[in-house]
Amino acid sequence: MFEIAELGHTVKKSDYKKQVPELRVKLLEAQQLLRDCDFPVIILVSGVDGGGKGEIINLLNEWMDPRYIRTNAFAEPSDEERERPRFWRYWRTFPSDGFIAIYVGSWYSDPIALSIYEQIDDLQLKIELSNIKQLERELVADGALIIKCWLHLSKDAQKKRLKSLEKDPETSWRVTNKDKKHLKLYDKFITVAEQVIKETSTGEAPWLIVDGSDIRYSSLTVGQHVLDRITRHIEHRSNHCPEPGAEVQPAIYVAQQSLLDTLDLTLSLDKKDYNEALADQQARLGKLIRTAREQKLSCILVFEGWDAAGKGGSIRRITRAVDARNYQVIQIAAPTDEEKAHHYLWRFWRHIPRAGKLTIYDRSWYGRVLVERVEGFASKEEWMRGYAEIVNFEEALTEHGILLLKFWLHIDKDEQLKRFKEREQISYKRYKITEEDYRNRERWDDYELAVNEMVTRTSTQQAPWILVEGNDKRYARIKILKTFCDNLEEKLSD
Amino acid sequence: MFEIAELGHTVKKSDYKKQVPELRVKLLEAQQLLRDCDFPVIILVSGVDGGGKGEIINLLNEWMDPRYIRTNAFAEPSDEERERPRFWRYWRTFPSDGFIAIYVGSWYSDPIALSIYEQIDDLQLKIELSNIKQLERELVADGALIIKCWLHLSKDAQKKRLKSLEKDPETSWRVTNKDKKHLKLYDKFITVAEQVIKETSTGEAPWLIVDGSDIRYSSLTVGQHVLDRITRHIEHRSNHCPEPGAEVQPAIYVAQQSLLDTLDLTLSLDKKDYNEALADQQARLGKLIRTAREQKLSCILVFEGWDAAGKGGSIRRITRAVDARNYQVIQIAAPTDEEKAHHYLWRFWRHIPRAGKLTIYDRSWYGRVLVERVEGFASKEEWMRGYAEIVNFEEALTEHGILLLKFWLHIDKDEQLKRFKEREQISYKRYKITEEDYRNRERWDDYELAVNEMVTRTSTQQAPWILVEGNDKRYARIKILKTFCDNLEEKLSD
Repeated sequence: MFEIAELGHTVKKSDYKKQVPELRVKLLEAQQLLRDCDFPVIILVSGVDGGGKGEIINLLNEWMDPRYIRTNAFAEPSDEERERPRFWRYWRTFPSDGFIAIYVGSWYSDPIALSIYEQIDDLQLKIELSNIKQLERELVADGALIIKCWLHLSKDAQKKRLKSLEKDPETSWRVTNKDKKHLKLYDKFITVAEQVIKETSTGEAPWLIVDGSDIRYSSLTVGQHVLDRITRHIEHRSNHCPEPGAEVQPAIYVAQQSLLDTLDLTLSLDKKDYNEALADQQARLGKLIRTAREQKLSCILVFEGWDAAGKGGSIRRITRAVDARNYQVIQIAAPTDEEKAHHYLWRFWRHIPRAGKLTIYDRSWYGRVLVERVEGFASKEEWMRGYAEIVNFEEALTEHGILLLKFWLHIDKDEQLKRFKEREQISYKRYKITEEDYRNRERWDDYELAVNEMVTRTSTQQAPWILVEGNDKRYARIKILKTFCDNLEEKLSD
Repeated sequence: MFEIAELGHTVKKSDYKKQVPELRVKLLEAQQLLRDCDFPVIILVSGVDGGGKGEIINLLNEWMDPRYIRTNAFAEPSDEERERPRFWRYWRTFPSDGFIAIYVGSWYSDPIALSIYEQIDDLQLKIELSNIKQLERELVADGALIIKCWLHLSKDAQKKRLKSLEKDPETSWRVTNKDKKHLKLYDKFITVAEQVIKETSTGEAPWLIVDGSDIRYSSLTVGQHVLDRITRHIEHRSNHCPEPGAEVQPAIYVAQQSLLDTLDLTLSLDKKDYNEALADQQARLGKLIRTAREQKLSCILVFEGWDAAGKGGSIRRITRAVDARNYQVIQIAAPTDEEKAHHYLWRFWRHIPRAGKLTIYDRSWYGRVLVERVEGFASKEEWMRGYAEIVNFEEALTEHGILLLKFWLHIDKDEQLKRFKEREQISYKRYKITEEDYRNRERWDDYELAVNEMVTRTSTQQAPWILVEGNDKRYARIKILKTFCDNLEEKLSD
């Protein structure tokens, strides 16, 4: 979920100085329009300590007209507040139509803190989050625009940031003991944060996860996102239709760096090493799968990736190690008539394995947010809703105890073209290449955007996405086999 | 919540015989149209044992074309089912577009049973219900029509029904030991059922609560409701807008009997008894309120009722017994500009009392589902959403420990006119009567419908509606004072 936000995005000082004035003008214009609108804007700025929440809120106030913004910071509740229901303190501060309220610390702070310090358990956290969703749903139903930004730092980045704040006498006061304690609790914090973001990234009020390691980058990203969301909301409201939800990434983001670009596609294995590793891992898998069968552990593997990225070959390397009675490979192509006449998840629910079995989906429910999104087969409203539906669906699987792994096979554009050409030369592979494959290539960037968003929204500790460097087929196959074995081993030892 | 379903509605055999053929024709026509629609229909028939679930499902199958209906009954899960996530068994059975699926026993059965037998606690029940809401929301978002019917019987009616089933050798097999056990657990069952219905009566998939004491009445009501919902859904889908939700009462229902008609408006007190009781109850209230203050128990009283029903006078009889520093009366009239620029609940949240204080709302958030509904100040979508929002809001209050009571002051139309005329004669009361009051009288039936629905949807054990017979002011005032005292006493002794 935080993969993209750890890529270390930066904006050069000169670029920043060029971009800020333009952004400010646009923000002020949007604010001007907003003044006459019949809805309020609620901006939450949350995230890890040292992620730059304070700086960003200061900048937002500086960039916009402060007469129509109010910033609300919540610490310990006052006695006035303690004597009322929990949400009372927030209701007091909700902005009027046409106004913006920024929240540092919000209805999310308590559940997160209580959960980290184990004062509430997972079940209670779920209830809290369900109350929060209800609150946000009611506000949105009434017209409000809710913008939620989460500033992320990797563990190392957080350590570095807190150190540098501490050194500088002008900022050292900002590092509290609580911050240092949080640093110790980083892993726990991230686990809780992931659950919170996953549960509450609804279609109507999604989280934007922002790389907080460079303040110029993060402030521009948040500023641009706020601008986009307000502009779009005004547009939709004046057309009397609700905003269908918001993409996670504002343009600035993806233009700069894609998750897929960070993969080292030169990784490879020579034939000898490959053959040895293949034999080892397949033997290992065979044993593990038998144990899984005995222990009634079911597994689901999802394969997605570019055309010709090597999904089929990778799947065969797995299935060869498994008794044919114990697995099923589900090829997902266009839905049947009967499938089309159901909810789009219905056809995936059908094939959920029985206890102890393995089901491999060759393409999957992610079609909703990949091909259906890019080709327009699903409406924006449908694929936006899809993320939450998918996360929810996968949670039903993992909560039942199923091991679920999702592989994205990545190759670059040149490698794809090379493979297309090769396939056309081989008689029994020629049928695999059609006009459509070439057409899909043209929308490479759209797909890449969709993949980035998919991973950000749906990669969780329970059901992670594994990005596989696929230019070398041998490397890819071994990485997949090994990852599956490692996860299986860990799960079986639980 | 079940008040209306205990009025003992009946339909005469001759009326039934006249109405059924017409209903059948219309149901078949609707089903014919449905065949070409791009959505499925899911009908849940739940409720108390002996409430006639089986009979009604048989009738629905008989009345409609069985080729396009499938009935799903769920008992103990099979091993196939147990080996998959819990909802898998339901996903398997979801109907295709154009088809109807009827469920006896559904995703509600387990949570209810587990909760009654205390195998899950309140928190776990909430999680289950939140998963159910998520499931239903996803189906509805995809276009599905979900119709949920709850067949209710009072404790006595259930006892009678089970006895008569047991006596008849043709039906005795239908009374299981489980049923008899349930009878013992009736109170517990009703408490759980109320929570389930309250939590899951969403705008998109509300429950219809049906009086199950007369099978002719209940089957006609359910049949009519199914017809209405399908017809309306087809209409809305063909206009490409989602159905805004469904009223609880189909027409047949209200035409027959209103909750307000059951009140005995001849109840009265003579002056002497009144004076004595007033002195007693006010003294009692004074003491109780002081204890409440010490124990930091806050109270909220809501007063709604017909114009001139005596809200103001009743409120004054309470406040006279309370130290002026400890209570506030909030008069709710048209919202201020600032209030209008917020969510409609904002102006009620503002006035939530501090610990140990009493707040009385003279008219309240119920305006949303009364005057705003009837006069069209709120859109249908808004007031339909209002029930869930109100229930949620009140839950935040009662969960915080606040004592919340809601009074509906009822008078009949003649009494109202009499009081209008009287007020016009008294100089200092003349200002209270305006053109508007006469206009409101004309919409009496619409208001009565709205009141019935309001009580059904929002009267809960935690925050009950108390219907007050108001033709005699003295009787009404004492009933209110006494009810408040009784509840306060009980709450303080907890």
